[in-house]
Amino acid sequence: MAATPYEQLEDRFERLFQLGQVEAILHWDTAAIMPSGAAEARGRQLAALRAVRHGMLTAAEVGDLLAAAESIGEGGEADRWRAANLREMRRAWVHATALGEDLVLAFSKATSACETVWRQARRSGDFAAVLPYLEEVLSLVRQVAAAKAERLSLGLYDALLDEWEPEGRSAQIDPLFQDLEAFLPGFLAQVMEHQARQPAAITPQGPFPVENQRALGVRLMKMLGFDFDHGRLDVSHHPFCGGTADDVRITTRYDENDFTSALMGVLHETGHALYELGLPRKWRGRPVGDARGMAIHESQSLLIEMQVCRSAEFLAFAAPMMKEAFSGSPGNQNGVWATGNLYRLYTRVEPSFIRVEADEVTYPVHVILRYHLEKAMIEGRLEARDLPAAWNEGMDRMLGLTPASDREGCLQDIHWYDGAWGYFPTYTLGAMTAAQLFDGAKKADPAITGGIAKGDFAPLLSWLRENVHAKASSLSGAEIIHQATGRPLDPLTFKAHLKSRYLEDGGD
Amino acid sequence: MAATPYEQLEDRFERLFQLGQVEAILHWDTAAIMPSGAAEARGRQLAALRAVRHGMLTAAEVGDLLAAAESIGEGGEADRWRAANLREMRRAWVHATALGEDLVLAFSKATSACETVWRQARRSGDFAAVLPYLEEVLSLVRQVAAAKAERLSLGLYDALLDEWEPEGRSAQIDPLFQDLEAFLPGFLAQVMEHQARQPAAITPQGPFPVENQRALGVRLMKMLGFDFDHGRLDVSHHPFCGGTADDVRITTRYDENDFTSALMGVLHETGHALYELGLPRKWRGRPVGDARGMAIHESQSLLIEMQVCRSAEFLAFAAPMMKEAFSGSPGNQNGVWATGNLYRLYTRVEPSFIRVEADEVTYPVHVILRYHLEKAMIEGRLEARDLPAAWNEGMDRMLGLTPASDREGCLQDIHWYDGAWGYFPTYTLGAMTAAQLFDGAKKADPAITGGIAKGDFAPLLSWLRENVHAKASSLSGAEIIHQATGRPLDPLTFKAHLKSRYLEDGGD
Repeated sequence: MAATPYEQLEDRFERLFQLGQVEAILHWDTAAIMPSGAAEARGRQLAALRAVRHGMLTAAEVGDLLAAAESIGEGGEADRWRAANLREMRRAWVHATALGEDLVLAFSKATSACETVWRQARRSGDFAAVLPYLEEVLSLVRQVAAAKAERLSLGLYDALLDEWEPEGRSAQIDPLFQDLEAFLPGFLAQVMEHQARQPAAITPQGPFPVENQRALGVRLMKMLGFDFDHGRLDVSHHPFCGGTADDVRITTRYDENDFTSALMGVLHETGHALYELGLPRKWRGRPVGDARGMAIHESQSLLIEMQVCRSAEFLAFAAPMMKEAFSGSPGNQNGVWATGNLYRLYTRVEPSFIRVEADEVTYPVHVILRYHLEKAMIEGRLEARDLPAAWNEGMDRMLGLTPASDREGCLQDIHWYDGAWGYFPTYTLGAMTAAQLFDGAKKADPAITGGIAKGDFAPLLSWLRENVHAKASSLSGAEIIHQATGRPLDPLTFKAHLKSRYLEDGGD
Repeated sequence: MAATPYEQLEDRFERLFQLGQVEAILHWDTAAIMPSGAAEARGRQLAALRAVRHGMLTAAEVGDLLAAAESIGEGGEADRWRAANLREMRRAWVHATALGEDLVLAFSKATSACETVWRQARRSGDFAAVLPYLEEVLSLVRQVAAAKAERLSLGLYDALLDEWEPEGRSAQIDPLFQDLEAFLPGFLAQVMEHQARQPAAITPQGPFPVENQRALGVRLMKMLGFDFDHGRLDVSHHPFCGGTADDVRITTRYDENDFTSALMGVLHETGHALYELGLPRKWRGRPVGDARGMAIHESQSLLIEMQVCRSAEFLAFAAPMMKEAFSGSPGNQNGVWATGNLYRLYTRVEPSFIRVEADEVTYPVHVILRYHLEKAMIEGRLEARDLPAAWNEGMDRMLGLTPASDREGCLQDIHWYDGAWGYFPTYTLGAMTAAQLFDGAKKADPAITGGIAKGDFAPLLSWLRENVHAKASSLSGAEIIHQATGRPLDPLTFKAHLKSRYLEDGGD
């Protein structure tokens, strides 16, 4: 019997999936363990893989197969997942074919050149050096946005956002971010006042041997449900969660003088990893079986890091483990390992210039600023040369800080220079989603909170698996949130979480 | 200007090369660091990669492009390397297209099933359990040999050998192996007598911490010329040299009670690695730029291991480094680290059942036995069910040993069960080649021997780079040997080496 159009598409996308997994492992290898001299050869390997995948996805017959499968209702109403699978195949194909080959090539060359120059420019705080490259990237980003907007019948910004966050729309983001933007400045002032009335946090004194840090991280990862038969923990300059759903590889970076940041980083990436590990095996190899967009992904890491692991319950549980792991580090009195002290350390708020170092309260400010700026640039309301002034004005207005140089300002993030436009809002959407999902989980299963206090994360993981991980890409992010919590994403739960954590005493 | 047929072929083979590099890195990853639960997913990734490469190599237009490029003499006489490149492209294409798709698939399934059953059968010494699978593999091997023999106008055995050792022919191997087969039994008896008159070697007492073993290995690797900017040293169950010429990854396996075997293993793989690292960058990505067959590859590892690192000169140089590395291991008197003792340890001869544990003198016996047996099986003169009896008869006749079970007999090597037929002779061709090349090198540059004695391997590496590594696949293995040493491969130098090492006193 001849394969149906749907079956032919499944075969093609299964092979695309396999090659995508290969690319993911190579990316991990490049960041974590590749010897430096292999960088150029690795670039050629990745380019060849990408070219093969692009050719398979954009081949002339794919459009015909999609149309045929859709017109005869293959995988249709009878099976929601097959229908969603077909929808996700079309989404991948539309994004891949929306751009002409010349534009794809020009964009790839421009971002590669810009990123290289940016690395040097950031070090020296020299925005002028990278400006011509950023202008070229922005010009091409606008062309990409225009081409995708026409193809997808979306606005310019949404056409880019859709790639990171499928079906994410600025019409939904705007009211959420406006709410936070109105709330955060006054709230931040209250938090700083409240914090000033608390005892100062005592910083643990190192050195903290890397082996001990790693062992503690592994111990907590296992407790949280990370499966080392299907994953690894390694080291890289920029921590990330890579690999594949069958082989999730997270990385961190250790500092012998400060264990707190690597440890929380490991727990954050573990949240990402648990999502990947929880994707449904039955749909492995099909687009519908992939993780949903970046906002849901970030919600899973932030749920583990911010909602669970910076909570007083978790820190009370983990404090003796930290004390034990670093018992060899001299000069730490018992007060250091008191839950209250660790809680103050891990919930310390301090407005600063750098997004990746920001606390939970000020992080959304950094993101909202970037969202406004990139939207204005994409829509032609802001030019690259005016970015530093607009950035500094925003930082001053929203946090009362003025960067001393663009190094602490608009040069700090790789995203725009590397071609990732329309990505930033997913960080704060993720934070809001994390709060709402965790609230929903605790209401659905009262055992979750008590479990965290005694290091039993099974009830939480079970709820996440069923309500988030198992859904994969069968639903949009908005639908996952709605089904899991009974309402659309709103800012109330996130704000309630911030108020409870940062205006009430905790941990002692 | 339109691309010529030769240029079109170069583009296609460059992409094939990149995907081949990707596959090599994944193979290394699988053996060295992949979490066990990812094995099945990894199998699918590799299968997808292989299918894509096979499709690119066997596409209808490749034959036409080869014919066109050859007929207009592209890359012809004017440039020997371009002509050789075209020749190697045709070789790859002929091997890939000689077999029908059904046969390729059946062979792949049969070897995969057989290898799985063999792993269990070897543990329990149960040849009967794997026999039906081996019979299926052998039946398909004969079909593969027949198809390739017809396509290549070669004998059955040579058609398989040609894939491992391009242009290797049994007509050249037979007289060489007959010579050794006549020489070795009598020689072995002399060696055993000579050895009995020597002092017994004192075995160093561990434990030898893994970190110290690794540090010593790395130190010697660097001295030999291994470039850690283009390579790594890791751990795997079966040591190997993997990765790519820009990123050579060797592995070893440490035993805390015995450093000698892991250390010599590292030096052996370093020989392989130096070959890869020495391949000409100018021809990277083209078939002519690849390493020549397995015999030359093995000659490079054996030259470093057997000719250089088990020599009295090298051991005199390395002895203080070993003593220093393991100074923390109690119970070793100074006599242990005396060059004479280390030399006796590293040149100890003892007939045994297991090839991979065999010494330099008896190793060829193991190989020659397998060569005879696999040739007989391929040519239909021996059936799989008669293999154990034939094996045991050969072991008895050649080494005077009878395996207690097939575990120590015909079940010990993965090769046949995994589909690698026509591979075995390359081990001993490599050993003979190593002896002849090393002899040629020392005669060409008298500084080489003195260099080894003081840890300066630059003169040797320089000669190998120029006379072997830089030739890549521009010549056949036989031509490389002839050009480098002024004569074809013959058994004289190898035998002279054995006599000098095993019948004369050394090291003290």
